[in-house]
Amino acid sequence: MRFVDLIEKKKKGLEHTNEEIQFIIDSLMNGKAEDYQVSAWLMAVYFQGMTIDETANLTKAIIDSGETIDLSALREFCSHVADKHSTGGVGDKITLILIPLLAACGIPIAKLSGRGLGHTGGTIDKLESIPGFRTDLDIEELVSKVKDVGLAIGAQTKRLTPADGKLYALRDVTATVDAIPLIASSVVSKKIASGADYVVLDVKYGSGAFIKTPENACELAQWMVDIAEKLGKKFHAVITSMEQPLGRAVGNAIEVIESIEFLKGVMTTDIKELTYEMAALTLLSLQKAYSKEEAYSQIQNAIDSGKALACFKKLIQSQDGNSLVVENYRLFPQPQYAERIIAAKDGYISNIDAYKTAYACKLLGAGRERKTDPIDYSAGIYLNKIYGEHVSQGEVIATLYANDESKLSLAKEFLKEAFSIAEYEQPKRNLIYKII
Amino acid sequence: MRFVDLIEKKKKGLEHTNEEIQFIIDSLMNGKAEDYQVSAWLMAVYFQGMTIDETANLTKAIIDSGETIDLSALREFCSHVADKHSTGGVGDKITLILIPLLAACGIPIAKLSGRGLGHTGGTIDKLESIPGFRTDLDIEELVSKVKDVGLAIGAQTKRLTPADGKLYALRDVTATVDAIPLIASSVVSKKIASGADYVVLDVKYGSGAFIKTPENACELAQWMVDIAEKLGKKFHAVITSMEQPLGRAVGNAIEVIESIEFLKGVMTTDIKELTYEMAALTLLSLQKAYSKEEAYSQIQNAIDSGKALACFKKLIQSQDGNSLVVENYRLFPQPQYAERIIAAKDGYISNIDAYKTAYACKLLGAGRERKTDPIDYSAGIYLNKIYGEHVSQGEVIATLYANDESKLSLAKEFLKEAFSIAEYEQPKRNLIYKII
Repeated sequence: MRFVDLIEKKKKGLEHTNEEIQFIIDSLMNGKAEDYQVSAWLMAVYFQGMTIDETANLTKAIIDSGETIDLSALREFCSHVADKHSTGGVGDKITLILIPLLAACGIPIAKLSGRGLGHTGGTIDKLESIPGFRTDLDIEELVSKVKDVGLAIGAQTKRLTPADGKLYALRDVTATVDAIPLIASSVVSKKIASGADYVVLDVKYGSGAFIKTPENACELAQWMVDIAEKLGKKFHAVITSMEQPLGRAVGNAIEVIESIEFLKGVMTTDIKELTYEMAALTLLSLQKAYSKEEAYSQIQNAIDSGKALACFKKLIQSQDGNSLVVENYRLFPQPQYAERIIAAKDGYISNIDAYKTAYACKLLGAGRERKTDPIDYSAGIYLNKIYGEHVSQGEVIATLYANDESKLSLAKEFLKEAFSIAEYEQPKRNLIYKII
Repeated sequence: MRFVDLIEKKKKGLEHTNEEIQFIIDSLMNGKAEDYQVSAWLMAVYFQGMTIDETANLTKAIIDSGETIDLSALREFCSHVADKHSTGGVGDKITLILIPLLAACGIPIAKLSGRGLGHTGGTIDKLESIPGFRTDLDIEELVSKVKDVGLAIGAQTKRLTPADGKLYALRDVTATVDAIPLIASSVVSKKIASGADYVVLDVKYGSGAFIKTPENACELAQWMVDIAEKLGKKFHAVITSMEQPLGRAVGNAIEVIESIEFLKGVMTTDIKELTYEMAALTLLSLQKAYSKEEAYSQIQNAIDSGKALACFKKLIQSQDGNSLVVENYRLFPQPQYAERIIAAKDGYISNIDAYKTAYACKLLGAGRERKTDPIDYSAGIYLNKIYGEHVSQGEVIATLYANDESKLSLAKEFLKEAFSIAEYEQPKRNLIYKII
């Protein structure tokens, strides 16, 4: 088999056999294919696409390129090993809330998360804003912590799906990131290699997501669910809007604080809608509940009883973090400077552009452009007013936090631009577009 | 400017500016672009195409990537510097005939040619079958020889259009050879860098050519003529069939012998039709003749008077070859073994598949698969019967020559398969499909 013939085949729009897909990934890993051949093949895939079978085979080959995590030990607590994944959004702190919530409902989760890059934040960065919190767990540690306290969250390791790492690095510099079969195989391979049997996906669209339309989000979601099924796994996907940030906080420590508040029962409706839905799907799929009502009541009970919050505290303690932050937010890194945005007129918040908000937040120092950039955990944005809320002229609608005073005014200009205020009351917003 | 953004732009089907094209070629040459980025861009070009303006700019940038040959000294003999080019065919010895013929008509030509690769032969290999013939001329030598004897043929140098060399090497291993703008810019850049103002192109289609249909050949030809015009040069293109080999000889020494025979007046109609047409187009374009009739009569006179043959002898002498070969073909390398194919029935030759003939010829040792393969100059095929000729059962229709006896029988099987014999007389074949 010659790599150039496989490029030609894909260029002509033909379907690769399983052996051909395996050859492509093997050649990538053992260096027998040159990067320039792989990138030409990736571009041909962009134009000609792949079938579900091809993509499932690709996913399998990517999984087999590295180690996989064996979480079968967790099956003594639960029939299936569950996981969640978000395609990335602004103010997306769902993992921080959902994992303790599911743990409180008797579903143990050993989760691997990533760091933030570009305009969306990463769960690992957020957790590391908790003083002492350690995310560099090896696999044995991860599993043993879940056995001890019911949950653990570690940073993604390069030992899982190394072929995905290599492919992504090439895609990033050859304008071949936005090909659905490549995105789908990347996500699904990571989740399966992490040991999950069941995954609830949050596929986001809108100005703050890399997918812009709900149609495209549904297409990607359907691909991921279908590929997973081909590989014997059950995935659900929640298609959600990322036109506006999730909740009120965007940053790192500030999002952890909002998550703690949520677990204490102080919730914005958007986060509640999404978290409860994802939790309920998981409870039903893992047969911890037998109706949506039952699932919602379990979830509500986990919050009301304080069990979910207790699980979050256990997570922090187990991973060497200072769990006193849960009661005393001043133990988080504190920003030196704050700046407020004041409403110029009366009205109702009709939009807060997610991308512009994220851009302002990155300017403040809370995000990174390159993998090696440092992060300011204390920097961030608090949206005092969010979609639909009434605002009077002179009221504070947002607060920006930073340690670099010079960046505040530029960030403020961007964030101002993100806000739209309308004269009339706004219709209720549906965050969830569809469930697949 | 970032290379990845230019890949994205082409991927979306947008047109590159001249600066962007220049950046792409500069980055290729100075190593700032990685090969994997260039190959992804090439694949995007395959799918999205390029405009004539983009392709003309690409051609210009490729020319500017290396040295160019200044043939203005030749303008004292002729208003324009002429050249010819063939996209490659089986038994294509037109250069060997056309260059002395034009020289005999007062058109000096300093020609650079290539070696054979794949199933089509190269002029340089054929000339090197003449004992002593030297093709490694530097540019000064090439020009001085033309001034002395009116013609010279040298091997292509890597100092011209090095960007084309780099691009082609990448295209070859990434299945991006067959993109019209890339083929067109490659050919036109080489011709212009070689110093030509006027070029007559032979664009071939059919089983023995890399282009399979006359429509595609016309499209490529039109592109080349249009790009050349954008760059201020006059190109003509003759679109010709390569379903069957040209003439009777396929190989190296054997094709030189057929060319000498032609210059002595022993011609097959196909070679005559094509050579006379290309010569006439050149004479008319360079205002050495003012009507087709006048051109044809000059050409016929160059043959009949022996001037064209004398020019070929001068070419051989000037480049240190043994010009006695013109009178004594036994001075060429001689094959040890011969094998004949006998007609199994009476009839008329209705087809000789060019690709199968070439494949058989390569098996005999006359061609090469890789650039470093050696060539057997004496190996080859003589078609005793060609299209339209009557054949009786038991007559010899072809003869194969080789030095490796073991290869003869396999080659014979392939060559047998190339022949079709029909019961009835065959219609006249038109070699020339169109002139652009």
